[in-house]
Amino acid sequence: MDALLDAIWVLFAAVLVFFMHAGFALVESGFCRRKNAVMVLLKNVAVVAIASLVFYALGYGIMFGEGNSFVGLNTFAPDGSEADVGTLPVFVFVFFQLVFAATACTIVSGAVAERARLGTFFVFVALATAFIYPVVGHWVWGGGWLSELGFADFAGSTVVHAVGGGMALAGALAIGPRIGKFGAKKRPMPAHNLPLAALGVLILWLGWFGFNGGSTLSASDPGGVAKIILVTNLAASAGFLAALAWVAFRMKTLDLSMGLNGALGGLVGITAGCDVISPLLSIAVGAIAAILCSECVFFLEKKEIDDPVGAISVHGACGIFGTLAVAIFGEAGVLFGGSFRALGVQALGATSAFVFAFAAAGLVWFGMKALVPGGIRVSEEHEHEGLDAAECGVSAYGDEFPALRSAS
Amino acid sequence: MDALLDAIWVLFAAVLVFFMHAGFALVESGFCRRKNAVMVLLKNVAVVAIASLVFYALGYGIMFGEGNSFVGLNTFAPDGSEADVGTLPVFVFVFFQLVFAATACTIVSGAVAERARLGTFFVFVALATAFIYPVVGHWVWGGGWLSELGFADFAGSTVVHAVGGGMALAGALAIGPRIGKFGAKKRPMPAHNLPLAALGVLILWLGWFGFNGGSTLSASDPGGVAKIILVTNLAASAGFLAALAWVAFRMKTLDLSMGLNGALGGLVGITAGCDVISPLLSIAVGAIAAILCSECVFFLEKKEIDDPVGAISVHGACGIFGTLAVAIFGEAGVLFGGSFRALGVQALGATSAFVFAFAAAGLVWFGMKALVPGGIRVSEEHEHEGLDAAECGVSAYGDEFPALRSAS
Amino acid sequence: MDALLDAIWVLFAAVLVFFMHAGFALVESGFCRRKNAVMVLLKNVAVVAIASLVFYALGYGIMFGEGNSFVGLNTFAPDGSEADVGTLPVFVFVFFQLVFAATACTIVSGAVAERARLGTFFVFVALATAFIYPVVGHWVWGGGWLSELGFADFAGSTVVHAVGGGMALAGALAIGPRIGKFGAKKRPMPAHNLPLAALGVLILWLGWFGFNGGSTLSASDPGGVAKIILVTNLAASAGFLAALAWVAFRMKTLDLSMGLNGALGGLVGITAGCDVISPLLSIAVGAIAAILCSECVFFLEKKEIDDPVGAISVHGACGIFGTLAVAIFGEAGVLFGGSFRALGVQALGATSAFVFAFAAAGLVWFGMKALVPGGIRVSEEHEHEGLDAAECGVSAYGDEFPALRSAS
Repeated sequence: MDALLDAIWVLFAAVLVFFMHAGFALVESGFCRRKNAVMVLLKNVAVVAIASLVFYALGYGIMFGEGNSFVGLNTFAPDGSEADVGTLPVFVFVFFQLVFAATACTIVSGAVAERARLGTFFVFVALATAFIYPVVGHWVWGGGWLSELGFADFAGSTVVHAVGGGMALAGALAIGPRIGKFGAKKRPMPAHNLPLAALGVLILWLGWFGFNGGSTLSASDPGGVAKIILVTNLAASAGFLAALAWVAFRMKTLDLSMGLNGALGGLVGITAGCDVISPLLSIAVGAIAAILCSECVFFLEKKEIDDPVGAISVHGACGIFGTLAVAIFGEAGVLFGGSFRALGVQALGATSAFVFAFAAAGLVWFGMKALVPGGIRVSEEHEHEGLDAAECGVSAYGDEFPALRSAS
Repeated sequence: MDALLDAIWVLFAAVLVFFMHAGFALVESGFCRRKNAVMVLLKNVAVVAIASLVFYALGYGIMFGEGNSFVGLNTFAPDGSEADVGTLPVFVFVFFQLVFAATACTIVSGAVAERARLGTFFVFVALATAFIYPVVGHWVWGGGWLSELGFADFAGSTVVHAVGGGMALAGALAIGPRIGKFGAKKRPMPAHNLPLAALGVLILWLGWFGFNGGSTLSASDPGGVAKIILVTNLAASAGFLAALAWVAFRMKTLDLSMGLNGALGGLVGITAGCDVISPLLSIAVGAIAAILCSECVFFLEKKEIDDPVGAISVHGACGIFGTLAVAIFGEAGVLFGGSFRALGVQALGATSAFVFAFAAAGLVWFGMKALVPGGIRVSEEHEHEGLDAAECGVSAYGDEFPALRSAS
Repeated sequence: MDALLDAIWVLFAAVLVFFMHAGFALVESGFCRRKNAVMVLLKNVAVVAIASLVFYALGYGIMFGEGNSFVGLNTFAPDGSEADVGTLPVFVFVFFQLVFAATACTIVSGAVAERARLGTFFVFVALATAFIYPVVGHWVWGGGWLSELGFADFAGSTVVHAVGGGMALAGALAIGPRIGKFGAKKRPMPAHNLPLAALGVLILWLGWFGFNGGSTLSASDPGGVAKIILVTNLAASAGFLAALAWVAFRMKTLDLSMGLNGALGGLVGITAGCDVISPLLSIAVGAIAAILCSECVFFLEKKEIDDPVGAISVHGACGIFGTLAVAIFGEAGVLFGGSFRALGVQALGATSAFVFAFAAAGLVWFGMKALVPGGIRVSEEHEHEGLDAAECGVSAYGDEFPALRSAS
C-alpha cells in the first residue's frame, strides 16, 4: 500500500513537471519578439512531442538500461513488463523520466530562438534526447561513473540544467547572434509579452515542486518531501528579490525580466541540494544563484553571445553553482565541516557534464552548420521579416495592418 | 486504506479535468477573432457554471440513476447519503463525472463561436447537460444497452467526444457560417491570439492525464495508470508532429494551428483505448487521428461548414476513430486476431451516439431557430461590429482607438 | 499509512493554492491598464516572494506558536524538528499555511494597483505577513480567543478574505483614487486584457479546490473532501451566473468582469462553511455572495473609493457574508433551528477580524504616508505616463510606437 502511494505521488509530480513545458513555452515566446512568437511556440510544443517519442524509444534505455559505467544499452521502448524501479512500476518511472528529459532540450530552444532553422533544430532535439542528455543521466542516475564517485545531484542541477545550459551555449555559439543584436546598428529587442513570460515563470515555479519533490521517487517520508518543496519555494523567492535588488543596484533599473530569471536561477540552484540544504541556507543559495545569473547575463551580453531568454545563465551557470552548493551548504557540506573532496567530486561532475554536453551539442550544431545545405540558420530575409510571417504565414495576434506588422 | 487512495487519485484527476476548461477557453478565444474574444470567454465560463448546476441537479441521475437500458431515472441532486460507487464515496464520483459532462458541452461552443446568441446557447447547454450527454453516458457507463453489448469506451472517445462533435455539427449547420467566411466576399479569419491557443492546448494535454488516468476510478494498479498516462502523452506527441508534417506535405505550409489540433486529435483518438493499446501502437493511433482530423478540417471547409476552432473534426471525427481503434489496435483488437464482431459493436456504438447527439442537438438548435423570436444567431450588425463591442460593451484588450478596433 | 496519505493530500492542496498566485497575477494585471501591467506583475510575484520569506521566518510563529490567546510567540523559522501537527509532519503544515498567508496580502495589491509606490508597498507586505494576518490567524486557527468562543471559519472567509479585504480598504483609502477615475475629468479605465483576467479567475477557481479541500488537513474522509470540492464548484458556478444576471438586470449590460468577480465572490462566500453547507444551499450562498459583491462594487464606485480589481468587494464583503453563512445555511445554522448565539459569534469574529485588519493596515499605510519622504504613492507624472514606462523602463507588450503607447 505504501508502494501505491509512492507511485501516485510520482505520477502527480510528473504531471507538474509536464506542466513546466507550458511554462517554458510562455517564457520563451513572451521574452522573444512579436514577429517570432508563433515559431517559438511551435518549437516548444514540438520539443515535447519529439522528446516524448525519442526518449521513450531510445533515451530511456541509454540512461537507465544496463550497460557500462558510461552508457546504458538495453530497455529500449519498454513495454511495461520490466521490473519495478524501487517501489515504482516501470511505467511510472518511465513517464517521470520522460517529462524530465524534455525539459533539458527545451532549455536549448530559448538560446537559439528567433533564428534557428526548424529542420536542423528538430534533428538536434532528437539527438539530444536520444543520446546527449541520457548519457550524462546514466553517469549520475543510471549507475555510471559519477554515481560511483559519490557525486550528488538530487533533482538535476547538473543532469538537467548544466547539461541544458551546455547544449544551449554550443547552440548559441554555432548559430550566432540575431541580426541587430550587437554591433553598430544594434537596437533593443524587448520582450513582446511580459504577462505571458511572468505567467510562464510562475508555472515553472509551481512545476518545480514536482521536479524536486517528485525526485524522492517515494512518499514514505512526507516531511522530507515537504521540506524539499519548502526550500524550493524559499530559494525561488530569494532569487526573485535578490535579482531585482542586484540589478537595481548595478543598473539603476527595476527589471521584471531579470527578477523572473533570478527566480528561475534560484530554483535551478537549489535543485541539486534540495534534500540536504536547510530552509535558512536555501535562502542564501537562491540569492547567490540569482546574482550569479544576473552577472552571467551581463557577461554574455558583453561577450556578444546572444541568448534571447537567458537560458545559458539560468540553467548553465546556476546549474553548476547548485551542484557545488550541495557540498558547501548541504548538511554534510564544508560549512558544516564536510570534506573538500566531496566538493571536488561535485566540481568534477558538474564540469564533466557541462563540457560533455557542450562538446557533443557543438559537434551536432557545428556539424550540421558545415554539412547541411542551408545550414542551421534561417535566411537573413526571413529573420528580418520575422519567422511567423515568413515561415508560418501567420501573425501571433492575427493582425494584418502595417503598423503592427512592422513593429519590433 | 486502498479505498482512500482511490478517492484521492480520482479527486486529483477531477481537478485536472476541471483545468481543461481553462484550456478550452483559451483555445476557443485564441482561435477566434479579436472582436469576439470576450464573448467567447464569457460563454466558456458560463458553460462550466451551467453544466455544473444542471448536471448535478439532473444529468447525473439521467446518466447513473437506476432506470432502464436507455435512461436513468433517480439519484437527482445527490446529497451524499447515496451508496459508494465501487470504492469511491458518491461525491467523489459525482464531481469527477460533473467535470466530464461540462467538457462535452464546451466542445459545441467552439463550433458556434462568433455568431451564436447568448440566450439560446445557454438553453442548449442546459438541455445538453441535462439530457443529451447523460443519455448517451447512460448507454455506455450507466449500465445501458451499449454496455450490455460489450461496447468499450474507456475514457470517452464516444461518450464525450463523438457526442460533443455530433452536437457541434448540428449547431454549426443550424447556425450557418460566419459572414464573410465563404462565398464571393470571403476573407481570412485568422486566430487572434496563438500564444493563448497554444497554452490552451498544453493545458488540455495536461488535463487529459486526469481525463484518461482518472477513468480507472482507482489507484490500485498504478502501473496501469502510468501506462494510460504514457500512451496519452505519446498519442498527443505523435498527433502534433503528424499533423504538422501532413499539412506541410498537403498545403506546403507550416501550420501551428493544425499541429495543435492534431495533438488534440491524437488525444481524442487514444481516449477510448488508452487502457488496452500499447505505447508503440498509441503512436500510430495518435498519428492517424491527427491526419484524419486535418482532412476533416479541409473537407468541412470545402463543404462550407464553418467550425471556427475545428471542434467537429477534433472531437467528432477523432472520437469515432478512437472508438474503432479499441477493436483494431487494442490488445484484443483485430490486429491481434480479435473478432470483427467487437469492431462492429464499436462502430454501432460510436455511430449511434454520434447520430443521437446530432439529432437531439439538431432538434434543439433547429427548434429554437424556428420558434424563438430573433432565432439562434446574433444580428448581422452585431456580427459585423463584433460581439464584444456590440453586446458586452468592451474590447478584450481595452483599446478604443480606431486602428485596432477595425482590425479583424 | 493513513498519515502518509494525509500529508500527500495536503501537499497536493498546497500546490493548488500556490497556483492561485498565478491566478491573482493574471486577474490583477488583466483588469488594470496596459501601461501598468508590468508593475502589477512585478508586485504580485514579489508578494509571493516576500510573504514566503517573512511568513516562514516570523508569521508562522505568530500564528501557530504557543503564546496567549491573542498571539503566538515561538516556533519562528521552524527547522523541521518540531512536533507533527495532527497527522502532518510540521513542514507539510508550514508550507500549506505559507501559501495561504501569501494570498491574504495579494488581495491588497489589487486595491492599490496602478499607483502604489513599490518600496512602501513592500514594507506593508512584510508587516502584513509577519503580523497582521498571523495575529487574526492565531485568534481563529492558532487556539486564540475566537476559537475559544466557538467561532467557525473552515477555510478562511474571515482569516484570509475578510482580513485581506479590510487591509485592502485601508490601503485604498490611504492612497486615494487613480487620477481621472472620479471627478470632472473622469474617463473609463477598462481592463486591458480580459483573456488573461478570465484565465486568472479559472485558475483561482481551480486553486480553491485545494484551498477549501486541503483545509481538512486530512484525507481520511474523502467523501467529505469531495463534498467540499463539489460545493466550492457549485458556489462559484452560481456566483458567475448570478452576477451576470444581476448586473444585466441592474445596468442593462452583459459584463464579463462582473461575472468573473461574482464567481470569486461565490468562492469567498462558501469558504468558511464549505464543510457544513449542503450542495443545494451552496448554490444559494454563491448567488447571494455574488449579488452582494456586485452591489458593493457599485457602492464603492459611488463613494469614490477606487479599487481597480474589486478586491474589497470580492474578499471583504463576501468574506464577512461567508462567515455569517456558516451559522445561517450550515447544517447547524438558524435555517435548521440552530442558535442565534452562534450567528452572533460569527458576526463578532468577522467584524473583529475585519476591523483589526483595517485598523492595523491603516496604521501602516497612513503612518507611511505621513512619515516616509515621498509617501506611499507614485508621482503624478509617473502615474500619467504609466508605471511600466516610468519606473520599469519597458512596455508589457514590447511596443514602442506611439499609437499603442498613448493608448489607455
